[in-house]
Amino acid sequence: MTDTLDPTVLSVETDQLAVNTLRFLAADMVEAANSGHPGMPMGAAPMAWTLWSRHLRHDPADPQWPDRDRFVLSAGHGSALLYGLLHTFGYDLPVDELRNFRQLGSRTPGHPEFGDTPGVESTTGPLGQGLAMSVGMALAERMMHARYPELTDHHTYAIVGDGCLMEGVSHEAASFAGHHRLGRLVVLWDDNDITIDGNVARASSDDQLARFEAYGWHTEQVLDGTDIAAIDAAITRAKADPRPSFIAVRTVIGAGAPGIEGTSKAHGAPLGESVLAETKALAGWDHAPFTVPASVQEVAAQWVQLGEQAHAVWREKAAALRKTAPDRAAEFHRVQAGTVPAGLGEALRATVGDAPRATRQSSQACLDAARGVMPELVGGSADLSGSTGTVCGDVVSRDDFSASAIAFGIREFGMAAIMNGMSLHGGFRAFGSTFLVFADYLRPALRLSALMRQPVVYVLTHDSVAVGEDGPTHQPVEHVESLRLIPGLQVLRPANDAETAEAWRLALERTDGPTALILSRQALPQDPPTKFDGHSPVTVEIVATGSEVALAADAAEVLRADGVGVRVVSPLDRSRYVPDPSATVVSIEAGSTSAWSGIADVAIGIDTFGASGPGGEVLAHFGLTTDAVVSRIRAHLVRAIEN
Amino acid sequence: MTDTLDPTVLSVETDQLAVNTLRFLAADMVEAANSGHPGMPMGAAPMAWTLWSRHLRHDPADPQWPDRDRFVLSAGHGSALLYGLLHTFGYDLPVDELRNFRQLGSRTPGHPEFGDTPGVESTTGPLGQGLAMSVGMALAERMMHARYPELTDHHTYAIVGDGCLMEGVSHEAASFAGHHRLGRLVVLWDDNDITIDGNVARASSDDQLARFEAYGWHTEQVLDGTDIAAIDAAITRAKADPRPSFIAVRTVIGAGAPGIEGTSKAHGAPLGESVLAETKALAGWDHAPFTVPASVQEVAAQWVQLGEQAHAVWREKAAALRKTAPDRAAEFHRVQAGTVPAGLGEALRATVGDAPRATRQSSQACLDAARGVMPELVGGSADLSGSTGTVCGDVVSRDDFSASAIAFGIREFGMAAIMNGMSLHGGFRAFGSTFLVFADYLRPALRLSALMRQPVVYVLTHDSVAVGEDGPTHQPVEHVESLRLIPGLQVLRPANDAETAEAWRLALERTDGPTALILSRQALPQDPPTKFDGHSPVTVEIVATGSEVALAADAAEVLRADGVGVRVVSPLDRSRYVPDPSATVVSIEAGSTSAWSGIADVAIGIDTFGASGPGGEVLAHFGLTTDAVVSRIRAHLVRAIEN
Repeated sequence: MTDTLDPTVLSVETDQLAVNTLRFLAADMVEAANSGHPGMPMGAAPMAWTLWSRHLRHDPADPQWPDRDRFVLSAGHGSALLYGLLHTFGYDLPVDELRNFRQLGSRTPGHPEFGDTPGVESTTGPLGQGLAMSVGMALAERMMHARYPELTDHHTYAIVGDGCLMEGVSHEAASFAGHHRLGRLVVLWDDNDITIDGNVARASSDDQLARFEAYGWHTEQVLDGTDIAAIDAAITRAKADPRPSFIAVRTVIGAGAPGIEGTSKAHGAPLGESVLAETKALAGWDHAPFTVPASVQEVAAQWVQLGEQAHAVWREKAAALRKTAPDRAAEFHRVQAGTVPAGLGEALRATVGDAPRATRQSSQACLDAARGVMPELVGGSADLSGSTGTVCGDVVSRDDFSASAIAFGIREFGMAAIMNGMSLHGGFRAFGSTFLVFADYLRPALRLSALMRQPVVYVLTHDSVAVGEDGPTHQPVEHVESLRLIPGLQVLRPANDAETAEAWRLALERTDGPTALILSRQALPQDPPTKFDGHSPVTVEIVATGSEVALAADAAEVLRADGVGVRVVSPLDRSRYVPDPSATVVSIEAGSTSAWSGIADVAIGIDTFGASGPGGEVLAHFGLTTDAVVSRIRAHLVRAIEN
Repeated sequence: MTDTLDPTVLSVETDQLAVNTLRFLAADMVEAANSGHPGMPMGAAPMAWTLWSRHLRHDPADPQWPDRDRFVLSAGHGSALLYGLLHTFGYDLPVDELRNFRQLGSRTPGHPEFGDTPGVESTTGPLGQGLAMSVGMALAERMMHARYPELTDHHTYAIVGDGCLMEGVSHEAASFAGHHRLGRLVVLWDDNDITIDGNVARASSDDQLARFEAYGWHTEQVLDGTDIAAIDAAITRAKADPRPSFIAVRTVIGAGAPGIEGTSKAHGAPLGESVLAETKALAGWDHAPFTVPASVQEVAAQWVQLGEQAHAVWREKAAALRKTAPDRAAEFHRVQAGTVPAGLGEALRATVGDAPRATRQSSQACLDAARGVMPELVGGSADLSGSTGTVCGDVVSRDDFSASAIAFGIREFGMAAIMNGMSLHGGFRAFGSTFLVFADYLRPALRLSALMRQPVVYVLTHDSVAVGEDGPTHQPVEHVESLRLIPGLQVLRPANDAETAEAWRLALERTDGPTALILSRQALPQDPPTKFDGHSPVTVEIVATGSEVALAADAAEVLRADGVGVRVVSPLDRSRYVPDPSATVVSIEAGSTSAWSGIADVAIGIDTFGASGPGGEVLAHFGLTTDAVVSRIRAHLVRAIEN
């Protein structure tokens, strides 16, 4: 078996034809939609063709093959290039889908959407995140390789644009990749010097090669982005280098379109019928729209055959492993499938104790317990592992990828995007942690976790003004509610050991979306559920979450002594809470009352920034004491009687 | 007049005493609070003392002097160092405030909070943002210098930690500063190699000097962070260099504390009584807690005198300018005071027309009009100026700082933090723009705008699924509601020219907090208010914002034909909306219904991610058509009658 095509098949003429195929498929798509981004595909088609015809090892008939190379188009607005590649290389993306580019219900949405299109490895468009997800995929590859060397040995490729490199997350991800020496990662930079507002030189004069070298990357530069041999050679050297590689490829946006190429006009609008016709004429392209010439199809098919052969070899290795190491083979397939092992619930329930402790500590116990049955559970924190209860054994390093703890560094956004990449890669359940208030730093990637339905776990601790002395910059107020707004994100705020164990179970048994665990810094009592229910008929229902559940229970006891029938409800997931329609409903949560106001008759919370001081004093300052809560409720009941 | 102290005053002995003063003030504060971060102050005290005793030009008696040097402690957890400096140099921060470190209501909160403490130039703590705000201050300085060269000529200094440099926003800000060659900016890196979880080498191996050189910065390295002469010389060279300067200063966290120095144990916990006593003994420090020795006070006082002299010279220049150029002098004082000129409202109202247009276009007209009367209104976008209606004349560059348009680059977070820095600096009203969906990228800095009460303006366009083809990654759904959760942020979603003009007026007349303007991509009609009110008694009140106001008006007309009395209300600021208690209230907003559900009987919106397709089709898909809305309302009315 060879892993390159016969050089006679890859003639200069066929290469040029293939490049034009990708260019005009993209331009035709944008023209048909009358909307989209033709410039990037037209400029980057040569590098994409070089990568896909000479390096990318995949099997379009099985887009889920675990050991395929990964390709991420971080410059997601160039989706038409990706769809053209998938179509040409035989993925299940027929020409009618290309004709339906950017239409409702098509498999060709405006930006690549994971799950909508076979072969699309990740949702991209929010700039920089594709690069960071590719770092996560490359990390997962090395970690799977350390665990299952026979079955994991592939590359991750990404094409990034100027915007990706300006975004801060590119720093976090590239620094992480350099530190971990992720040598299987090859990033091609579509260096076209143009952004939406004009030349890059308006806003940036970074020396990107020097920058990536400062991160410990291998760098290459290709000065003519149409020189397929030079691109090919650079990728070949990149694969041979033990460091992650960054290849700057000088391109011309909208290449070949007269009057438009090389300007920001090529970025985000159709060429228009006459310019497109002229462009095709200049390129000697006389095919009907949406054509893939037979010789190009032939090259793609031959290349795909090599991928199929590699896949067949891999299947043999998998079969061999099932014989030589059946347990490890079974585990490989289980973690790839994302199945949760039996015994998880039991292991988690065993963490429940009697002593008061912070739910971040309960969570550390759950994590330890879950790891005992789920070796695929890996992760860490943005440099707060001790504080957030996310210590996870040995730390993964460039010298040893077999460990389970990931030192993400003080890089919240990068952490979340890397988790997304690991989850997309498969084989791992990833968790990441920081203080809840810094969920703002990672929110753009958390949104993508939800949009891509990735079951990653966000461990967000120090969850209210009870944080205390660190003050308003470190005290979340609006954050729990702001997370609840993200479609598909499961937000759980447990009150004690038992609820924390249940929250971890819900998070890990969920396979089609992310979960945020909202945990306290301060110790909380292990109140028995019996404390929650009154014995007289219920006239007041106090609904509270997390650290406020104990406060609610204390307030309920005082009110019961008054003769009021009070029930306390602790909905782990507020979206599942149904208020008692016959009761006066009081909510208590040490944060925004915005949505609670529509649920409860009395919504007790905090709608301003916090304050620096000892946690208990700060809580008292904001009326979160038993006395203050009881007074609020009594006052409401009195008013209700008077009306 | 000289601008350095007599070298005989600054003896090696006094320097050492001063450094120990700052170290032990900080350690005493943390010890008294039994909470805080002693390690950073103890390691960084020498560089801080060098900067404050030899370079920082300021006048503690007037912390608002416009031409003072700015100092930002980006590593905000080291607040005790800053408070020690302010106390020692005679700011209004008496020793009792130091004793009350981290207590409720003190002027010494856990992290520096702008507005709480005289001399604190910005709130810091969320890592990386202090660095980015210092870039904004340095930009504002050069822009004010271009406009008022006689009155503006100072430096901006920052001390940053490892965490600041790992955060992505450090990339965005440093790249921006290098590109704009902000030579008045000097950044000292407290290079102590320690983060909360351990050694920096766990998570990063960046070559920071090479990295900053790649951004076009001048770099220096001081290998002994206690070598005051070396630090002094490096700062002197930095000030002379036309590029922004990055000085790596090797330090030891918790320097001098036996068994703790140089480890992460020094980061975030008190030393403890016995270790503190031992540390003081080893340093030969036999003063009572919270002591500033007389000789240190004397040096500080002499240095402050130089600042007062410089301030006096500046006052003479200001007086001279009032004579030679009274208009420009008056303008300088007006923009420093943040006063809005007469004529703003009139100028804005003149933008109102009859033709349908997108509110992003209405907003561009408002911006043009406002700039006519407010030359201090400057800003730009994260590379979307054309799309977001934020074109603002010539672009500021390293060669010309007199322009008003800022090319922030594809750096949303950096943009917002730079705006905060500009606003804190004074003299400008800054605006910045991106698509609403990417408000997530800048959210951490927007939170600080609100916490610091800075009147910056966020122009957030493409405000719903009506964005269309770009699909869910580009379609905000949860964003308007998530912004409304941030305390003190004014969120305005105008429906047409008139409301957009009013929104700009509210944004610019507000001087104590930020505003988010939420604007449409698609054209909206200029519906007359008469369309909003029905003539029969009102039984249904439809409340809608932005692009949904016209939809509400259309639905109202259909319902009126049924004989239903309908009023349409368009609250520019939802927080000021009071529902009609006697009417059935229906809300329409093309986004999250979370909070609307508590306000309206029927909340029409979108609680899932969007979809890629032409905007009108996507709106229809989500039930945002006149027919669908009318059906929802009719069904509710029928159910209400049946019950």
